[in-house]
Parts: sequence; C-alpha cells; structure tokens
Amino acid sequence: MDPNYISPFIASVQNVFSTMLHLPVEVGEPDVKVEPTPTFDVSGIIGMSGDVTGSVVLSFPLQTALRVVSIFAGAEVSEKSPDFADAVGELVNMVSGGAKGMFQNKKVAISCPNVVIGAGHMVARLKDVPCIVIPCATDAGKFVIEVAIQERPANAGQVGAMAAARA
Amino acid sequence: MDPNYISPFIASVQNVFSTMLHLPVEVGEPDVKVEPTPTFDVSGIIGMSGDVTGSVVLSFPLQTALRVVSIFAGAEVSEKSPDFADAVGELVNMVSGGAKGMFQNKKVAISCPNVVIGAGHMVARLKDVPCIVIPCATDAGKFVIEVAIQERPANAGQVGAMAAARA
Repeated sequence: MDPNYISPFIASVQNVFSTMLHLPVEVGEPDVKVEPTPTFDVSGIIGMSGDVTGSVVLSFPLQTALRVVSIFAGAEVSEKSPDFADAVGELVNMVSGGAKGMFQNKKVAISCPNVVIGAGHMVARLKDVPCIVIPCATDAGKFVIEVAIQERPANAGQVGAMAAARA
Repeated sequence: MDPNYISPFIASVQNVFSTMLHLPVEVGEPDVKVEPTPTFDVSGIIGMSGDVTGSVVLSFPLQTALRVVSIFAGAEVSEKSPDFADAVGELVNMVSGGAKGMFQNKKVAISCPNVVIGAGHMVARLKDVPCIVIPCATDAGKFVIEVAIQERPANAGQVGAMAAARA
C-alpha cells in the first residue's frame, strides 16, 4: 500500500483524540496485518469509495473503549447504551474523514460507520487487499487502526470494489 | 426508510443465492431493528456512499455460514481459512451490488466488504439511522440482511455521512 495513505490516518487520529478527547496518542510502527489476527471487543468500521476504495477499522479492548467513550461523552457510558456504539462510530467517522481530507487530489466518500461489539471478535483480513495495522497507545489504553485501502483501478467502472481488486 | 430501498435487497439476495449457490431463499417480513439486537457469529459488512449512504450487513450463525460458504466454494471450508472470510465478503458484495443496480437513478458506490468473525457478536444499530432487518431462510439455515441506508441530504456536501444524518 502507498505509504502516503497511512500518514493521514496517523495525523488524523492524533488530531481527533487530542482535540476531542484531550488524549495524546502515541503511534507505534505501522505493520502489515498477518494471521493469526489479534482479537478485539469493540470495532468501529467504515468504508471508503471513489478514487480510493477499502475500509478503515478502529478496534479496542472493551475497557479502553469504555474509557475513551466516557471521556468523549463527558460521563460514564455503559457498553449497553446506544450512545456507546454511536460514540465509537463517530470516532471512526472523524478519524477517517480527517484522513481522507489529507489525500491529495482524490475524490473519496465515506460510508456510515458500523460498530461491532462482542468479546474476542476478529475483523478478518480479506485476501488480495493489503491491510496495514497502526498501533496506538493512550493513557486510556491501547487500540489499533486497520487500514485496507487501495486506489481504484482506472478500468474499474461499475464493478464492485472486490471484483476490481481481483481483476 | 423508503421501502423502495428494501425490495432491491430481497430481489438481489434471492438472485445471488439461486444463481451462485442454487439455494432458494425464503424471505420473511422485513422489520425495523430494535434492541436488544440478536447476536451472530459471522457478519459481512459493506458501506454505501453517494446519493444513498449507509451500510448493509449479512449476518449468519456459524453453522449456516459454513454450509453456505462450502456450497459457494464447492468444497468444505473451515472458518479458519482465509477463503472463508473472502467468500462471506464476496456474498455481501454481490447482494449489495445487485441491489444498488436496482436503485432508480441513483449514483451509489459500495466499499470493500469487511467480515467479522466471533461467537455472539452484535452489529450495533447506530442512533438516527433507521435499520431494517430482512429475515432469510434457506435449506442451509437462517440468516439476516440488515439494511441501514438513507438518501443523502441535498446539502450534505463534503461532511461525513453520520454528521449529515445528524444535521
């Protein structure tokens, strides 16, 4: 994957967490995701389409997600509250929206976020789509950003993103 | 949600499952998703953006997913194989791609699919985005399609889909 697509996510997560949560993020060395993948408890997932297609995932252990969301909301939020998933979705939305704004000369749209909650789930890496894991550490705990995006082939036309990736 | 956005998914899932898997799908009454949400073992998630934004989720119990993927692949596939997630992603890609082709006069792009694997996880419903659950029954077992999409407000401009939904 073009490293020019990774640095915007690093800048964006640091920007979002410091401005919205006053929580500095220490970013580790980004790495290619390999199996067996780590498992998480809470994942916010968002899709990108347009000149760049793929997906962005913010994955947290539950305790970290609870702390981050409580800081974001300014009050304790239980994982059973609808506000919890909403806040996780808003975080991945802001991080992805901020990053796409830094892509040079690309028209990219982001979809609504989805939030998955469940102890020890795994967001599977699709074959043929490279995925970069960006480890993040904060005072509220560790989490990761997984970025699996690529420029759309010029001839992709109306076919689905995955079919295009395989073409 | 406009029911004109639901019938394409019903037609598409029946078309994809009958042509690709020779597996007729009996579709139950679509319903608005309410809490507490059911939990699943395998979910394929895809985002839509453009004139229509939101997300589409195909969620299966593990045994159903294993049967469906094995029929799709023409061989037994374990949930630990990378082919398993790939096949689930391809199914949600085909169902969503087929459905968006039936939207009238709408320009819609779909993102790469994400696949979540984990016993008893829940794909949280975001507040403010209506979500319709379409129950599906096949000889390989039951699954659901969750459709949470909406037309993009005319003034949405470059803001994120979720921010637009809240505006």
